[in-house]
Amino acid sequence: MNKKNKNSFTILGINGAKSILQTERFHSINIDILIGGPAEKSKSLMEMIFSSNLKHRFYEKKGFFQKYPEGRSQGIAVTFSGHIVSQELPDFSNENNACLLALDQIEDPQNFGQIIRTAECAGVHGILFPRHSSASISNTVLQVSQGAFINVPLIEVTNLKNTFSELKDDGFWIVGLENSIKARPWYNIDYNDKTLIVIGSEGRGIREKVLASCDFKTTIPMQGITGSLNVSAAVSAVLFERLRQIRENN
Amino acid sequence: MNKKNKNSFTILGINGAKSILQTERFHSINIDILIGGPAEKSKSLMEMIFSSNLKHRFYEKKGFFQKYPEGRSQGIAVTFSGHIVSQELPDFSNENNACLLALDQIEDPQNFGQIIRTAECAGVHGILFPRHSSASISNTVLQVSQGAFINVPLIEVTNLKNTFSELKDDGFWIVGLENSIKARPWYNIDYNDKTLIVIGSEGRGIREKVLASCDFKTTIPMQGITGSLNVSAAVSAVLFERLRQIRENN
Repeated sequence: MNKKNKNSFTILGINGAKSILQTERFHSINIDILIGGPAEKSKSLMEMIFSSNLKHRFYEKKGFFQKYPEGRSQGIAVTFSGHIVSQELPDFSNENNACLLALDQIEDPQNFGQIIRTAECAGVHGILFPRHSSASISNTVLQVSQGAFINVPLIEVTNLKNTFSELKDDGFWIVGLENSIKARPWYNIDYNDKTLIVIGSEGRGIREKVLASCDFKTTIPMQGITGSLNVSAAVSAVLFERLRQIRENN
Repeated sequence: MNKKNKNSFTILGINGAKSILQTERFHSINIDILIGGPAEKSKSLMEMIFSSNLKHRFYEKKGFFQKYPEGRSQGIAVTFSGHIVSQELPDFSNENNACLLALDQIEDPQNFGQIIRTAECAGVHGILFPRHSSASISNTVLQVSQGAFINVPLIEVTNLKNTFSELKDDGFWIVGLENSIKARPWYNIDYNDKTLIVIGSEGRGIREKVLASCDFKTTIPMQGITGSLNVSAAVSAVLFERLRQIRENN
């Protein structure tokens, strides 16, 4: 599952396929279908493909699994092109409790994909990541996100610090999530206003210069002995605490 | 990374290796070390191995990566034996805010491992799962849990419903996490007393009979369009909400 060129990706599975085919932003290049597989049995999916006359090819088991050995394909693989990543910040002036995530050098594509998926479910308005020095958008990232990448803006920025300044001018509070006893517990932050939450890399956390531009630092104190919460699990805890606060205030 | 027999597992990585070697519950069978790898450069780890005279073998790059192609091994693989799973419920009579998880047919080893890891970080006292019909403990589960499986009791039960009755007699409230508009939002549950949280399978949720024995049903309402939160992300949201309540009440 390597991306072949910058604008061509492949996504497996019925839900992923449907999400791509329903969106005008993306152009289906080719669809591989396993004869007798779950996807072929999905009437709604097959109708989407046939009614739009999309290029597709049927495979016997052997050929399909040779091409897609990963499993969990549900017998369908859609190769598509389109702009997944934007270079521009949306306008948040009318979104009083807008929430953005900034990923400072997340390296693991599983974590990147999970964070996109969780962010979409928790109503995040966009995910920022620096152009260089982080996991790039790959088939794995998209696959793990389970189609969520279509519905939450992914915004590539040249320099996180400069973008933070811009967002601060727009009324955003910048909250850095880090592993530190000096930081406030994650539920002692007020997430009701415009908030940007900064997430550091799995091993090294947030870079010092990026952390210095945060208005608040927050942490999730560990209870166990192992004491290493997965970064996407930490994001889930923080984003749903935000949602709790917003729901309880309204 | 398949398990070879019921009591022999292999774990990769420096932290995983250290966790195993520090615990008397497990017996190291063999340790494979990559010459010049990060693990070999870890003085503390090498001392653990040499001072206890544990059986080990050094490998050149080619041989090591042939045997462990998964990456992220940090140049060490510990094969060990021991009882990872218990068949008995611990005694919770003195733990006023004990929290247990029950996994009803979690199928994906990644999710199983992540849930163990998150549960340990969130101070859960044990994870129950039915003997049949769920993902079994495999190398992948242990690897993803990042050593957390050592510190949180994994308890295999014959029948979840019977175990629930037993726990109810002991003062536990049973809370089922499901995707339903009839259920209360996850933060409207009081987690301060003894609580068992039931998690269903990724696709089908909690089995009806198991759900019927829950005292409360709770849900995490989805904000996005995709609307499918990963089960381990959902567990994180609920367990850290519990922790918030307990910390704010004390």
